Amino acid sequence: MPELRKDPITQEWVIIATERGRRPSDFTHLTIAEPDKPEFSPTCPFCPGKEGLTPPEVLAFRHGLGPNTADWWVRVVPNKFPALAIEGVLEKRGNGMYDMMNGVGAHEVIIETPKHNLEPATLPATQLAEVLWAYRERYLDLRKDARFKYILIFRNHGKVAGASLEHPHSQIIATPMIPIDVVNEIQGAERYYQYHDRCIWCDMIQQELGSTIRVVNQTEHFVAIEPFASKYPFETWLLPKMHQASFSAMNRERMVEFGGIMQDALGRISRCLNGPPYNFAIHTAPCDREDSEVFHWHMVIMPRLTIAAGFEMGTGIYINVTSPEDAARFLREIDQADRTTQPSIAEVTA
Amino acid sequence: MPELRKDPITQEWVIIATERGRRPSDFTHLTIAEPDKPEFSPTCPFCPGKEGLTPPEVLAFRHGLGPNTADWWVRVVPNKFPALAIEGVLEKRGNGMYDMMNGVGAHEVIIETPKHNLEPATLPATQLAEVLWAYRERYLDLRKDARFKYILIFRNHGKVAGASLEHPHSQIIATPMIPIDVVNEIQGAERYYQYHDRCIWCDMIQQELGSTIRVVNQTEHFVAIEPFASKYPFETWLLPKMHQASFSAMNRERMVEFGGIMQDALGRISRCLNGPPYNFAIHTAPCDREDSEVFHWHMVIMPRLTIAAGFEMGTGIYINVTSPEDAARFLREIDQADRTTQPSIAEVTA
Repeated sequence: MPELRKDPITQEWVIIATERGRRPSDFTHLTIAEPDKPEFSPTCPFCPGKEGLTPPEVLAFRHGLGPNTADWWVRVVPNKFPALAIEGVLEKRGNGMYDMMNGVGAHEVIIETPKHNLEPATLPATQLAEVLWAYRERYLDLRKDARFKYILIFRNHGKVAGASLEHPHSQIIATPMIPIDVVNEIQGAERYYQYHDRCIWCDMIQQELGSTIRVVNQTEHFVAIEPFASKYPFETWLLPKMHQASFSAMNRERMVEFGGIMQDALGRISRCLNGPPYNFAIHTAPCDREDSEVFHWHMVIMPRLTIAAGFEMGTGIYINVTSPEDAARFLREIDQADRTTQPSIAEVTA
Repeated sequence: MPELRKDPITQEWVIIATERGRRPSDFTHLTIAEPDKPEFSPTCPFCPGKEGLTPPEVLAFRHGLGPNTADWWVRVVPNKFPALAIEGVLEKRGNGMYDMMNGVGAHEVIIETPKHNLEPATLPATQLAEVLWAYRERYLDLRKDARFKYILIFRNHGKVAGASLEHPHSQIIATPMIPIDVVNEIQGAERYYQYHDRCIWCDMIQQELGSTIRVVNQTEHFVAIEPFASKYPFETWLLPKMHQASFSAMNRERMVEFGGIMQDALGRISRCLNGPPYNFAIHTAPCDREDSEVFHWHMVIMPRLTIAAGFEMGTGIYINVTSPEDAARFLREIDQADRTTQPSIAEVTA
């Protein structure tokens, strides 16, 4: 019997279709690993030495040389084909029953490493922490612009997930209004707060750590779970255990720890599902609510293993063919399985 | 400058990214027509003579022979791998902060024709009207079941749009709750009704017919438009001009007329975009509001030309790279263009 589960925050129902239950191996035909990529690609505009092919950088972590030279390890540039334009004013206006405004905002690309063939799961841990720190730096700079109400940091991994360029990169978009999904999340969290006087994510973490069936991993300050009402197979949330509304409130030390659990989660997903395409997005509080007692930032990782079709597009109800309990178990056990088939050097030489 | 437009019903903003503006030919690499299919496929469970491979039919339009024989022209069967199960009770229950219930519902497949290689755009017009009539018959039967609150009729066309079987078919799913997207549509329409005392779709039709820039085609009682805040390139809505809340209120004569404009719209989309994958869904009133003055049924056709990625999944804001005004013009002009490149027999022999 399939199960209907309600997301406690947004009140969206999902169908956990147990009869269609899928194991990781059922998805691997969808997740054929891309051919081995070179460390440097002469045609890639994000590889070092091609700084002239992008708009001038807005941030770079680099050694001694000047801006837009090749000695960087993280580089942020405006998107050459931005979804929203950085110049201009909103000019809100109407036409009969319709409302519109200019598409003002920011759209930047965070180039995560000079190396063409890495990704967050395979970057050196210190490098991933640098990328996360660049996210925060750009967030703090963009939030100074009074036109922007919300800042989303996200990543598309693989063509199926919408990545048009191969070189490892994330994106950041600042919007002049609070996006509808964030509005719905906040309204749901406020409803819960009014009733219980507590943050809904804090309560969720407490319940999850109590039973552990949906927990993938945890560190001192962070936890990785498969949410109860997962929309997608192997959907994974990374949350700070302490209440914190905004990703931008993270300090350097916590960022390194977060990079560790993020890399662990992405690595488990990659090994378990043969390097699937995925998206991730950081759900953080709107710029003017960074100290909110209601909102709790978290990263949502969404592997692209199934296709949303007419039913999902006509109802907003997602059919998930792998229960989050099964997904969590597969992801927890992947290390064990890996160790069995690929013994570490220490074990081999012992 | 990109433009932000607000859906007047759901209040969702979309980005019309004019700098990324795309013509139909920019999409054709995504819409490679599938190889010519045979009229009969020996391995297809929906082809005539294979009735034993599906669950027993719940409806068929057929000649003299008995149920589950091969002499049908439209056949409806339960889905062999249903997303929701027809037997059972809801058993609403909780677990700490979480809510769940049994996945009770109906999930049926409408086999649109015995011929393996047709589709709604190429079916004989009389046959498409029969398919639409089968939709209505199944709706009227399912609505008698008090467990079901909503009934969605939809179609997935092509693998990219989630179709797992090639044989032309639509689907119908009855759910034990009103889906979140329908709730949001109704709430938006109610807000408008409270303010204006009018149906928002009726007003929209009036405004669109006044300017015609987003109108693709119209008949006496129906209109095909590209909606002002289209989420997807070439998104097309088919609406009755008269106020009507439920698709099930259609009579036979109107159904034939609707089949005509539906086939015209799907044919234009197919010719303009080289047979793209698409989904469609019929947005109809919930079962207990079939006489609503607030809701107005319509069919939404969603060609699958772009990929929703991290930004869309993290915000609910869609980036549409073809303005609805451009899309409407391309779809209006496609007949003209077709006639230029492929003269009809009458013109050739003249």
